[in-house]
Amino acid sequence: MIIVLKKTATEANIQHIAEKALKLGLKTHISRGVERTVIGFIGPEDKLQMIPLDTFPGVEQVMPVLAPYKFVSREFRTEDSIVKIRDGVTAGGKKLIIMAGPCAIEGEEMLLSIAKKVKAAGANVLRGGAFKPRTSPYDFQGLGEEGLRILKAVSQQVGIATVTEVMDPRDVGIVSEYADMLQIGARNMQNFSLLKEVGMIKKPVLLKRGISSTIREWLMSAEYILSNGNFDVILCERGIRTFETETRNTLDINAIPVVKQKSHLPVIIDPSHGTGRWDLVASVSKAGIAAGADGIVVEVHENPEEAVSDGSQSLLPKKFELMMHELAAVAKAVGREV
Amino acid sequence: MIIVLKKTATEANIQHIAEKALKLGLKTHISRGVERTVIGFIGPEDKLQMIPLDTFPGVEQVMPVLAPYKFVSREFRTEDSIVKIRDGVTAGGKKLIIMAGPCAIEGEEMLLSIAKKVKAAGANVLRGGAFKPRTSPYDFQGLGEEGLRILKAVSQQVGIATVTEVMDPRDVGIVSEYADMLQIGARNMQNFSLLKEVGMIKKPVLLKRGISSTIREWLMSAEYILSNGNFDVILCERGIRTFETETRNTLDINAIPVVKQKSHLPVIIDPSHGTGRWDLVASVSKAGIAAGADGIVVEVHENPEEAVSDGSQSLLPKKFELMMHELAAVAKAVGREV
Amino acid sequence: MIIVLKKTATEANIQHIAEKALKLGLKTHISRGVERTVIGFIGPEDKLQMIPLDTFPGVEQVMPVLAPYKFVSREFRTEDSIVKIRDGVTAGGKKLIIMAGPCAIEGEEMLLSIAKKVKAAGANVLRGGAFKPRTSPYDFQGLGEEGLRILKAVSQQVGIATVTEVMDPRDVGIVSEYADMLQIGARNMQNFSLLKEVGMIKKPVLLKRGISSTIREWLMSAEYILSNGNFDVILCERGIRTFETETRNTLDINAIPVVKQKSHLPVIIDPSHGTGRWDLVASVSKAGIAAGADGIVVEVHENPEEAVSDGSQSLLPKKFELMMHELAAVAKAVGREV
Amino acid sequence: MIIVLKKTATEANIQHIAEKALKLGLKTHISRGVERTVIGFIGPEDKLQMIPLDTFPGVEQVMPVLAPYKFVSREFRTEDSIVKIRDGVTAGGKKLIIMAGPCAIEGEEMLLSIAKKVKAAGANVLRGGAFKPRTSPYDFQGLGEEGLRILKAVSQQVGIATVTEVMDPRDVGIVSEYADMLQIGARNMQNFSLLKEVGMIKKPVLLKRGISSTIREWLMSAEYILSNGNFDVILCERGIRTFETETRNTLDINAIPVVKQKSHLPVIIDPSHGTGRWDLVASVSKAGIAAGADGIVVEVHENPEEAVSDGSQSLLPKKFELMMHELAAVAKAVGREV
Repeated sequence: MIIVLKKTATEANIQHIAEKALKLGLKTHISRGVERTVIGFIGPEDKLQMIPLDTFPGVEQVMPVLAPYKFVSREFRTEDSIVKIRDGVTAGGKKLIIMAGPCAIEGEEMLLSIAKKVKAAGANVLRGGAFKPRTSPYDFQGLGEEGLRILKAVSQQVGIATVTEVMDPRDVGIVSEYADMLQIGARNMQNFSLLKEVGMIKKPVLLKRGISSTIREWLMSAEYILSNGNFDVILCERGIRTFETETRNTLDINAIPVVKQKSHLPVIIDPSHGTGRWDLVASVSKAGIAAGADGIVVEVHENPEEAVSDGSQSLLPKKFELMMHELAAVAKAVGREV
Repeated sequence: MIIVLKKTATEANIQHIAEKALKLGLKTHISRGVERTVIGFIGPEDKLQMIPLDTFPGVEQVMPVLAPYKFVSREFRTEDSIVKIRDGVTAGGKKLIIMAGPCAIEGEEMLLSIAKKVKAAGANVLRGGAFKPRTSPYDFQGLGEEGLRILKAVSQQVGIATVTEVMDPRDVGIVSEYADMLQIGARNMQNFSLLKEVGMIKKPVLLKRGISSTIREWLMSAEYILSNGNFDVILCERGIRTFETETRNTLDINAIPVVKQKSHLPVIIDPSHGTGRWDLVASVSKAGIAAGADGIVVEVHENPEEAVSDGSQSLLPKKFELMMHELAAVAKAVGREV
Repeated sequence: MIIVLKKTATEANIQHIAEKALKLGLKTHISRGVERTVIGFIGPEDKLQMIPLDTFPGVEQVMPVLAPYKFVSREFRTEDSIVKIRDGVTAGGKKLIIMAGPCAIEGEEMLLSIAKKVKAAGANVLRGGAFKPRTSPYDFQGLGEEGLRILKAVSQQVGIATVTEVMDPRDVGIVSEYADMLQIGARNMQNFSLLKEVGMIKKPVLLKRGISSTIREWLMSAEYILSNGNFDVILCERGIRTFETETRNTLDINAIPVVKQKSHLPVIIDPSHGTGRWDLVASVSKAGIAAGADGIVVEVHENPEEAVSDGSQSLLPKKFELMMHELAAVAKAVGREV
Repeated sequence: MIIVLKKTATEANIQHIAEKALKLGLKTHISRGVERTVIGFIGPEDKLQMIPLDTFPGVEQVMPVLAPYKFVSREFRTEDSIVKIRDGVTAGGKKLIIMAGPCAIEGEEMLLSIAKKVKAAGANVLRGGAFKPRTSPYDFQGLGEEGLRILKAVSQQVGIATVTEVMDPRDVGIVSEYADMLQIGARNMQNFSLLKEVGMIKKPVLLKRGISSTIREWLMSAEYILSNGNFDVILCERGIRTFETETRNTLDINAIPVVKQKSHLPVIIDPSHGTGRWDLVASVSKAGIAAGADGIVVEVHENPEEAVSDGSQSLLPKKFELMMHELAAVAKAVGREV
């Protein structure tokens, strides 16, 4: 932590801050410049994070030196983490993780049919929502536990791993029973009760970035999960909210290499939500893999016109298959494989 | 709902859409222009909201005509709603509602002292957090139920209404027992499990706008509460996330008159979070009242240097008192009173 | 300037930076912490601003200590500047400056009629565009010099000061001949050729904030004008671009007190562009004055249906008059007058 | 154009609008729904764009049906445009266009050395600024005409095409004499005087997207150039401003396929400004090409520590060469070549 003092700061102001630091067991390093005096602190920075130093008299600016997260950082673990979703299905290694399926689970027959097709095209995880976070209380809210049951049944029949969203801390137990991986949606990225709850289970977690969360906040939310004991976290960039209206969100492609530098956790992209338009999904998926993402999660539906949720961003199985061919070429170009 | 077709749309495309509408019990109105054909639908629009019309062949654009909320709208109730928080304490009438207190409840003595001072200066609701949503798992997370007990004890001793945040649907019951009003924080504005839960209680709810939520989404979240039976909702503008870094958030002053047009619900501002800086709170509070807000919620702390949370945006009681004098003058200028 | 080094930085990295600083005539202050080494520089910071310190080996972060502007800062001049627009018409003192008129000058008769009405209602500056920056090449581009001539003729007849936009450095001379004050529009806030040109004239300049400019960038653009010799600058907050779509822009009310702290220059708001809707103008104008703005610039048109530009954000003269009564009350409440 | 009326709109309101349309030579199509009446207009929409229909009594919403641009649209030209920069150097075909060089031209020797290296690595256009748009008036402003002379000399010696920025309409003539292509920078995307000026020359124009410009506004700015007679425009996505602070800007990868759908013009990306960090340039360049971009423009400097501008986002020639190998693989994967 570094503090820049105001031009008008007095010696008494400096002493007051130095004493506060001393009480917390930190040493200070005072540098008197021509225009400003600067105080550096030597010792564990986290002790200072609890203190609102910017309210101290004479303080102009407070500048943190260290990142506020620990377990998710590259400093904590330098090599890439590989997260196991199920036997033979992992994220973070050479092989990309491809999650595909409908936005919402609408019935067993429908899910079974999609599951077979996406698996045949190269997907290794089936996605599908049983609990749906919907902006409107009048929209379809998901099949609930019945949806979970269907997901598991299809998973067993087809032989594919599964991921599904959990929205309520009270549902973490039941979702864990049915699915291989739990998803925390963008709207719940800072639902700290939920983060703590999934931090205490033994299943991997797919943590989506909030639509207006900084990369730092996203990593802090992951830190909630890791610090509660669950290290199996996969990050998912799914587009941020900007002023642009042509697309539903703006997929932040820069975030891929940034997260790769800062953290050892796998990171994938969600081109369906990241664009909101099925006709952009293939281009943006290729971009994500080229930028270094460890995989994608994509919405596929056999009859988007009848989809109860997010039909306009869902690919037809045929288009998904076609895209998988293109992705395979790009993956190879960057030393990965599907 | 209006649909604009692509230049290349065929007669078969048009028929396909018309048939879909017919099945849903809607009539269509087809307008063939020089450049584009446009289809309007006559009948209840909400039936169409479930259909991803933009996936239908030939469709270029889908334009909803009606707002997606009902109970929160001015069309549903034309006069301003007055929300009762406690006997003699209401929001939405001529008298402004002034909520003040520390960010977090740190102890009984401290809360009692602040409560007396803010009441003396004109506050009619005491705020204070027992459950704190913190970006970092390593920050102070609140006193929990002990904090709630303190809040109630102080409330009874001083004779002031109370508001406190609830973050977990499992805590709605207990928070309702202790506090007069429940706050849904910005990070939980789209925590739909929580919204449904507070929609089923008999206490008023203070619903903060998410930092990157549109006014429409904010009203939709209120609709979750009203449609579950609880009409006692107060909206709170608390700043949105923009590119500007001088302030923690950008208080959206335009939102006050916009919400007043669209909804009958009371709306207040939170200048502490809306700016993130105590030295801007008075200016922005006056602006909010001048723009038509029904009140403010503001952080006050006797010793911001020692505050365990948000010290840098907390006013000293003396500054709060001073601000209340200024607010009284502005309130009078716009036909209100503190 | 402060530099935070990477955990892996070597002694050689530190020496390399120290030598660079020495060559520039700066002393360094090295502080070796447990986690990181930090280097502070003592001497004129602007010498360092030209050096891309973040490219030096071992550097993790570069933190500027001082604001990059000089003449616009409160440190340069502590008391508020008062900008004279014409004899008896100033901005920055107790009396508010009220600029009103049509978006574009459409003809002499029309401008004369509006000028009389806005003056009668309390405006002291007539606004009106002769050169119009339009997003579309197919929109009305302004009357050009003929518009300027009309503006001056009306000004003389009615006895009111004038402000009009200049978009092209080649037009600065001619606009200066006709108008009392030159406006730099939001789209040209970083048109540096234009800024330098208006920095060399003897007329006051109204500098609008760019729709996505930070307060710092805005002040830097003002610095271009002051550093070229023209200290008569009035800043104008006119709304920034955010994700919200209910309003054309989001007027940044926080910017008023922030700018007042950082700079001695007068600052006004433009509620017409800041909201894009005439029905929000009065509320937001009152908010701006309550927050400490030195005035407003507002669009007024007698027949918005026929306006060639921005009709939907223009007030009718009657509404403007009404608003001026309300503004007078708010101004009085905050110790100002219209 | 479609108009949605308020619930309270009267028959007289409808007639008033219909009459206005008739005067403009348009037919109206009135559709009376249960909740709202909707009016569609048949005839040339651009006539209506000049009319502020949202100010008409009874109007709730105005919805444009057609895009406001013509010459830049896919409807105007369905096949991809190929822009010729110099004999043998084109943008928009199978072969990617690679523009590389220093941010600013600092001297002949330096530019010559870089030019040789980037050409050897596969670049076909040399970039370098002679007129620099700088946020601060105290930063290096470019060598001006001397820089242009150097650029041309190096171009002839090395045999490479050139691009350089023009900021002032008065400089368009001289820049055209020296360079093969003129760049309009992000800050000048809506400098309409400048756009008109480059619309009247016979050289290709590289039009950067403004940091907070929508895709629609960007295409409208291109329309200014095309509608003035110059069809040789290359679009350049260079990052938009968002709330994220890890990167200088957020490169909008979605914009590539969106622009490809809407326009026939070539589109490239600028990963240097799009990220602001040299260590992200390679990842994001690969992403851009994978998404369908026609090329890149990238900053290369032999000694970033000594660069007078943007050193922290410049690649060393060695890194550029390395990246070109990676790009070649990705290009091949998507059917392109470097």
